[in-house]
Amino acid sequence: MYFSKKAQPFFLPKDQSYINNKNSPETIRLSIGNPPPDGFPVSRIREASRQILEGDPNSVLNYSEAAGMESLRQTVAAFLNRRGDAVVGPDDKITITTGGQQAITLAVQLFCDDGDVVLVEEPTFMVALDIVRSLGATPLGVKMEEDGVDLEDLERKMAMTPKPRLLYIIPDFQNPTGITMSEKKRREVCRLAYKYGIPVLEDNPYYELRFSGDFLPFVKCCDEHGMVALTSSMSKIIAPGMRTGYVVAGGKMGEGFEKLKTASDFHSNSWAQRVCGAIMAEGMEKELEGLRALYRDRGGLMVSCLEKYLHPDAAFTRPEGGMFIWVTLPEYVDMKAFLAALNENHVQVVAGSLFMADGGANCRSFRLSYSLATEEDIERGARIIGELTHRFCK
Amino acid sequence: MYFSKKAQPFFLPKDQSYINNKNSPETIRLSIGNPPPDGFPVSRIREASRQILEGDPNSVLNYSEAAGMESLRQTVAAFLNRRGDAVVGPDDKITITTGGQQAITLAVQLFCDDGDVVLVEEPTFMVALDIVRSLGATPLGVKMEEDGVDLEDLERKMAMTPKPRLLYIIPDFQNPTGITMSEKKRREVCRLAYKYGIPVLEDNPYYELRFSGDFLPFVKCCDEHGMVALTSSMSKIIAPGMRTGYVVAGGKMGEGFEKLKTASDFHSNSWAQRVCGAIMAEGMEKELEGLRALYRDRGGLMVSCLEKYLHPDAAFTRPEGGMFIWVTLPEYVDMKAFLAALNENHVQVVAGSLFMADGGANCRSFRLSYSLATEEDIERGARIIGELTHRFCK
Repeated sequence: MYFSKKAQPFFLPKDQSYINNKNSPETIRLSIGNPPPDGFPVSRIREASRQILEGDPNSVLNYSEAAGMESLRQTVAAFLNRRGDAVVGPDDKITITTGGQQAITLAVQLFCDDGDVVLVEEPTFMVALDIVRSLGATPLGVKMEEDGVDLEDLERKMAMTPKPRLLYIIPDFQNPTGITMSEKKRREVCRLAYKYGIPVLEDNPYYELRFSGDFLPFVKCCDEHGMVALTSSMSKIIAPGMRTGYVVAGGKMGEGFEKLKTASDFHSNSWAQRVCGAIMAEGMEKELEGLRALYRDRGGLMVSCLEKYLHPDAAFTRPEGGMFIWVTLPEYVDMKAFLAALNENHVQVVAGSLFMADGGANCRSFRLSYSLATEEDIERGARIIGELTHRFCK
Repeated sequence: MYFSKKAQPFFLPKDQSYINNKNSPETIRLSIGNPPPDGFPVSRIREASRQILEGDPNSVLNYSEAAGMESLRQTVAAFLNRRGDAVVGPDDKITITTGGQQAITLAVQLFCDDGDVVLVEEPTFMVALDIVRSLGATPLGVKMEEDGVDLEDLERKMAMTPKPRLLYIIPDFQNPTGITMSEKKRREVCRLAYKYGIPVLEDNPYYELRFSGDFLPFVKCCDEHGMVALTSSMSKIIAPGMRTGYVVAGGKMGEGFEKLKTASDFHSNSWAQRVCGAIMAEGMEKELEGLRALYRDRGGLMVSCLEKYLHPDAAFTRPEGGMFIWVTLPEYVDMKAFLAALNENHVQVVAGSLFMADGGANCRSFRLSYSLATEEDIERGARIIGELTHRFCK
């Protein structure tokens, strides 16, 4: 049996040596970036579900509108526009997806044929690398700086021949680095996208989880030429098991997302669309404030513990929201040995190499997530990591 | 902005001349193949949902197992195997998808690179044609006979160079023809698939809706060499708004589906997986008998009305299950004028050309669906169609 060229890499055994995964009762898991269950609006979900299933069950049981319910699309538009910016403009279409993840899949389908290049931040969301490859395209990393992509490197790569077909970015509290792109860079990214004719997928699932500093405009709002599609989801603000996300895009791009979603699986689960729509329509500022406080507490504690325990040569990011911190060790550190030592000491992190388009053979970084960690885990985990940095750094 | 070559056809305006879509209060809709809401197990869905959301809400709210819940996979396996055949064998994996439709998407991704050919029945499910194209592959039709694909035409096309990468079939009560593939042909299809090394996707959503004759073995059960993947869903036996389906495949094929689903959107909605799992695990023979009776009544009435009213030169299929009948007029009929006359007379059907891989310029058929029609609609619709056949046939 012959498998497609693009599917073949999925059958290769993954290099386990960079995955830190020892499990025991004493394991401190700073690896998983899942939302904390204490942030789920369980009683509101129950009540919305009860009302729908009692009052209008057929609205969630039969086939519904292709590519998403009109009522949810309107609610999402109002939610995104509630701060004043026209995130969803009159020319934009919203397609409801199975999590934001499916919007990445659709974007690659919409813009890439076999062998086409997708520019990604380096490092980037590891699943995005899988998606790009699963559709026959090739991810190529663009260097990151403390305030987002390196614009020189971005322009050099946008100018390549053959031309890259898509730029994928996570501007706020990026996965895996926690970095936020400055407003100036957002505008520059849009200018370059227009100059080189390369559309941008802005993946912004953590946007509402800002716990310090001011909200920045979405990249989509910095774009005057319809080059940017925005995807986000209800995974981090309601619950990820809903698998309900969306992508907003103008003109032909918006039409393309809608048509490809319709072809792929017609539409996502209707119950989740109605329940999420009901909760968002009634307002969720209280829940969002609660989530921000929760992430602020855990993120703040993690940063202060890292400041206390880490060797001064170990650098780490200080996120203003979201759930990730990126730790980078000096070049001379034997990363394999460091990760093995973490494993020995029952601390789970994710090796940075997994987030690199090129496999990251020389990567000296790892990702920490504090979203599910208790205070004790954060304190003990940071202490152990700190001790190891002192052992491995000169 | 540059769109992928494969997305470009999706921006073309569709030829509306073959779509029969006049809507008015008196319209008789024999076009839509949706399951009838009177067949949805509403109270069981309510009760299962209540138990889950009261008892264990986090089981449906956080991320769940990649590519589907283990509990649902086991329930699906037991359901498929309950008649005795090992539809799901020890080497098989089940991947939970967003409707059966997503399994077609994953199959094309798994087997096809840009330009590869997918063999389909002619006519076939029109959405499958869109899916194949949306992933850069090309559908090629294989002639249909009264008992399924024409084996000679199939072998001739399987032997082509370059070799087709996938065969897509709907063996029971096919959409759009209502045709069921004979058991002998099922075995031959498997033999040819093995001989030419071409995997088969068996799409079998209507299997449980058999209302006359004996259940035939799934094509997957006629296959001794792991060449067949089976997809089906809960859309026709519970409710389509669930968007819960599955694909069963052995060995590397099963692994490939699981990995591509995980990359595409991680997993489908969890609530629907739990609710469908609970209902299927408790047993649903009573519901299935009810559905069969409902389709038997409507399908039987439609066939007897067509026998009564149609011109003898108008041929039509007599399905043993499912929801579709395929009517074919003599070659000399001006099909465009016939469809326009149906439209004038407020009867909605689907033009057969839409189900043809080659666009069906010479197609003289149309699809009737009786799943949502009342007795009166069926009687009146068949009478009007019959009168028009007498007007258009010599």
